[in-house]
Amino acid sequence: MIVVIQCKDQVGLVAGITGVLAKEQLNIVSLREHVDKIENRFFIRVHLEQDTDPQQLEMKLKQVLPAAAMITVNPMPEKKIVVMVTKEYHCLGDILIRNYFKTLGAQVQCVIGNHDTLQNICQRFDIPFYLVSHEQKDKEAFEAQARQMIDKHAPDYIVLAKFMRILSPGFVAHYTGRIINIHHSFLPAFVGASPYRQAFERGVKLIGATAHFVTNELDEGPIIAQQIIPVTHSHTAADMMKAGKEIETAVLAKALQIVFEDRVLVYKNKTVVFE
Amino acid sequence: MIVVIQCKDQVGLVAGITGVLAKEQLNIVSLREHVDKIENRFFIRVHLEQDTDPQQLEMKLKQVLPAAAMITVNPMPEKKIVVMVTKEYHCLGDILIRNYFKTLGAQVQCVIGNHDTLQNICQRFDIPFYLVSHEQKDKEAFEAQARQMIDKHAPDYIVLAKFMRILSPGFVAHYTGRIINIHHSFLPAFVGASPYRQAFERGVKLIGATAHFVTNELDEGPIIAQQIIPVTHSHTAADMMKAGKEIETAVLAKALQIVFEDRVLVYKNKTVVFE
Amino acid sequence: MIVVIQCKDQVGLVAGITGVLAKEQLNIVSLREHVDKIENRFFIRVHLEQDTDPQQLEMKLKQVLPAAAMITVNPMPEKKIVVMVTKEYHCLGDILIRNYFKTLGAQVQCVIGNHDTLQNICQRFDIPFYLVSHEQKDKEAFEAQARQMIDKHAPDYIVLAKFMRILSPGFVAHYTGRIINIHHSFLPAFVGASPYRQAFERGVKLIGATAHFVTNELDEGPIIAQQIIPVTHSHTAADMMKAGKEIETAVLAKALQIVFEDRVLVYKNKTVVFE
Amino acid sequence: MIVVIQCKDQVGLVAGITGVLAKEQLNIVSLREHVDKIENRFFIRVHLEQDTDPQQLEMKLKQVLPAAAMITVNPMPEKKIVVMVTKEYHCLGDILIRNYFKTLGAQVQCVIGNHDTLQNICQRFDIPFYLVSHEQKDKEAFEAQARQMIDKHAPDYIVLAKFMRILSPGFVAHYTGRIINIHHSFLPAFVGASPYRQAFERGVKLIGATAHFVTNELDEGPIIAQQIIPVTHSHTAADMMKAGKEIETAVLAKALQIVFEDRVLVYKNKTVVFE
Repeated sequence: MIVVIQCKDQVGLVAGITGVLAKEQLNIVSLREHVDKIENRFFIRVHLEQDTDPQQLEMKLKQVLPAAAMITVNPMPEKKIVVMVTKEYHCLGDILIRNYFKTLGAQVQCVIGNHDTLQNICQRFDIPFYLVSHEQKDKEAFEAQARQMIDKHAPDYIVLAKFMRILSPGFVAHYTGRIINIHHSFLPAFVGASPYRQAFERGVKLIGATAHFVTNELDEGPIIAQQIIPVTHSHTAADMMKAGKEIETAVLAKALQIVFEDRVLVYKNKTVVFE
Repeated sequence: MIVVIQCKDQVGLVAGITGVLAKEQLNIVSLREHVDKIENRFFIRVHLEQDTDPQQLEMKLKQVLPAAAMITVNPMPEKKIVVMVTKEYHCLGDILIRNYFKTLGAQVQCVIGNHDTLQNICQRFDIPFYLVSHEQKDKEAFEAQARQMIDKHAPDYIVLAKFMRILSPGFVAHYTGRIINIHHSFLPAFVGASPYRQAFERGVKLIGATAHFVTNELDEGPIIAQQIIPVTHSHTAADMMKAGKEIETAVLAKALQIVFEDRVLVYKNKTVVFE
Repeated sequence: MIVVIQCKDQVGLVAGITGVLAKEQLNIVSLREHVDKIENRFFIRVHLEQDTDPQQLEMKLKQVLPAAAMITVNPMPEKKIVVMVTKEYHCLGDILIRNYFKTLGAQVQCVIGNHDTLQNICQRFDIPFYLVSHEQKDKEAFEAQARQMIDKHAPDYIVLAKFMRILSPGFVAHYTGRIINIHHSFLPAFVGASPYRQAFERGVKLIGATAHFVTNELDEGPIIAQQIIPVTHSHTAADMMKAGKEIETAVLAKALQIVFEDRVLVYKNKTVVFE
Repeated sequence: MIVVIQCKDQVGLVAGITGVLAKEQLNIVSLREHVDKIENRFFIRVHLEQDTDPQQLEMKLKQVLPAAAMITVNPMPEKKIVVMVTKEYHCLGDILIRNYFKTLGAQVQCVIGNHDTLQNICQRFDIPFYLVSHEQKDKEAFEAQARQMIDKHAPDYIVLAKFMRILSPGFVAHYTGRIINIHHSFLPAFVGASPYRQAFERGVKLIGATAHFVTNELDEGPIIAQQIIPVTHSHTAADMMKAGKEIETAVLAKALQIVFEDRVLVYKNKTVVFE
């Protein structure tokens, strides 16, 4: 069982928390703790050997924590996700394969595409695919339709697996802290459109990918994971894009894994990642 | 202040330890804990905001820990080291520069070489250099002379910075857990002599370096840090050696940093590294 | 069009080759050349902007090259491959996805498994899956059956995507230089069985994967690509295996890409890789 | 001997160049060629086994090349450099050690500092240190004094080893293509001041360093080499700066090595690096 807590920092928090756990005879397999001294914020993730009643444990933990503490006691259930895509297959393909072999750490409920390019691959895996075209309707209508599909499946997270449209503040607010995006650059370099074109023109020697939670600032949400690969003068912009897809896939896979294992805590615009 | 503890695992250890710290009003900046379930062994490193009397704290901690617990309460003093070298300069040069600018996390007491090649560079930094030649004497006599030099300086650690002679079991036993070596391969590949020659002949695409504690099994001691760099068909064995020196320097520097910051705990033939 | 040549080294080879190309008005997009001074062996890969008749060009090139030169003039056709598997899905899944979206650089003709675990995923992609069980028959009979299936499809390469049985010298000799394997360690560390178990017990800080051509020496064939990822004390052997699968997938994908693009030249037990 | 050429692309360039070399009985050890199709620009680096008269070879090569071709025939002499610093020691220390042991590939003529912090370390290596303070004078006067010192030593390159002042267009123009800077971020992320502070506030998971030629656009010159290291939530801005120094040192060392070996060709705002 996993316990994740964040709250205002004060002396004695770890003692209080682990005291409760010891009294319950719960053995700690691993414990990771972090204090952000600037924000005076305390973060902890405890992996317990045994399971117990989550609500009772949460109540007991509350008694040793500050009033506004955020406590998640999670008996390691599988998350539910909805995936949004446009035309590129590499991230979705990876997710579908892991989902099919039950190593994703989540269950894909459905895929929503604004093009039908990836419909067939979803069908091959018996995953519902909803085409929600953005054409001939305004953003509001488009997002309303997408939200309807999403909410029907009540996902824990929405994964933007190369979904190439910018979502409105209203949409993002509706799913605060639950939308994960893969951006095809080493943020904050090359914010916005055509990062590989930008990277090619700048003549960089490394290209990157960034998985992050989506907020209302474009490409500015809390970063979950980043990775790079070397490129050379012999890479055209198209070669960079092709090479980049490999790390986009890898970075998104990594980010999903650590999020689904409750290893990522968000505070303001940053993440604490207990790997 | 840093507190490092290892002992047999049991329920309530973290609660007990952090309870003591809370009672002393010592605030935890960071806490890293690990339980080796196979060995049933508990490891913890706590970074405290305040300093306190180390012996008193150790006594209080003992009361909540199993009898054989190993406790180090370390008010972050600078370690003292002796460096042993042969002819290659790259690791020693890096250590001397960091030592000179006081960012090594340790004080170099002296350098012992079995050749005089690196005498001049030590003199330029006002570091005593002792030539202890291995020629025309047996290993016992050689090591006796080296030990005399070392023990005069009472170092916390002995760093083999490309020291190219194998030390006897007696020598190693005298400094158990205190000798750090840099091996010029990605152990356990290419144990023993001429690893770059071996790597070249095998046609590998990566070469590595390994920093480890020295035990009586050649190149078999607990690994502290490892790193690799890519090589290609265009690397000759000499090119690999040249490229390898860069990571040897980097890996040894990294290993020394984490050891000197009390982040490396050893149990049997493995390390727990709380970075 | 790609031209790949290897032969004994001598003065004037590049001049001779590029002279022929210039006379044919073929523009060089990129040229990579390597001379192995120890073996006195010359390797070259030329990427030409235009296509031309391959046989005529080969004949003209022969006139400026030593008698035993190996010349491949390849108008960039897609390779055909057969994939052999056991039970693990990660490499096969990646190959099937790329194959489906036509970015593998080869066409998967069929998959041969000695278990039926991966039959269903192949069917979902309309790829023929042949179950060739190794049970209740000797190696000779097993391999005869596999060879029959393979030869029916006349593949350019046979990809062992976590195929967990050792092939006989006879089988390997039949497909000399055409069998590609992914080994789950950073060779030559941890040759043979259970490399993650070995890595765990050694307490390494990096684990690796190696793609190589198969020869009759176990895990000793020419290395095509290698990669590593960091691990820590908190990784169990099972965690290492899980983390390892990610790089096994990535390294095999990389190796296949460069082999299928005719970037890998083999001589004796090494590869020259013109990336 | 190394021959480096860049010119407008056309059919037959490699044939022409290697024809000249073959006629001179010069054996090619390695040849790297690149054509930038967008710029229609041809780049080549040839490593020859033998030496010959550079001027005669250059003349013969001119006859097979377009009129404006840039030809460098370099009998591998050691470059001369001047290093400019402010207060940080890590890059300079690395350069001085390599220079002392004659593995830098260049000779340090002198060090110019706008503070005297690094004077002593230079003296220990018998390298002239000139204090050119920027205080109580305008940029023009400061740079005039620096230029006088530099020009006295006629360096091939000026290395800004954490020199923390922005140089004027006039200064840069005077040494076009000969000033190498190490920037403490993964450009183009975090251009300008305090990149580690910016990186910390953005919550990135990787930090980088970039070595580049200096032009009049701040941090916009042709990139020579880049590298990154992972960071976590537990890194303060100060920790990031400390970790960053390690890669700044490594990236600058790498960049200097490849520049001094004539592996870096510059065209417009990009480099071609023949490693």
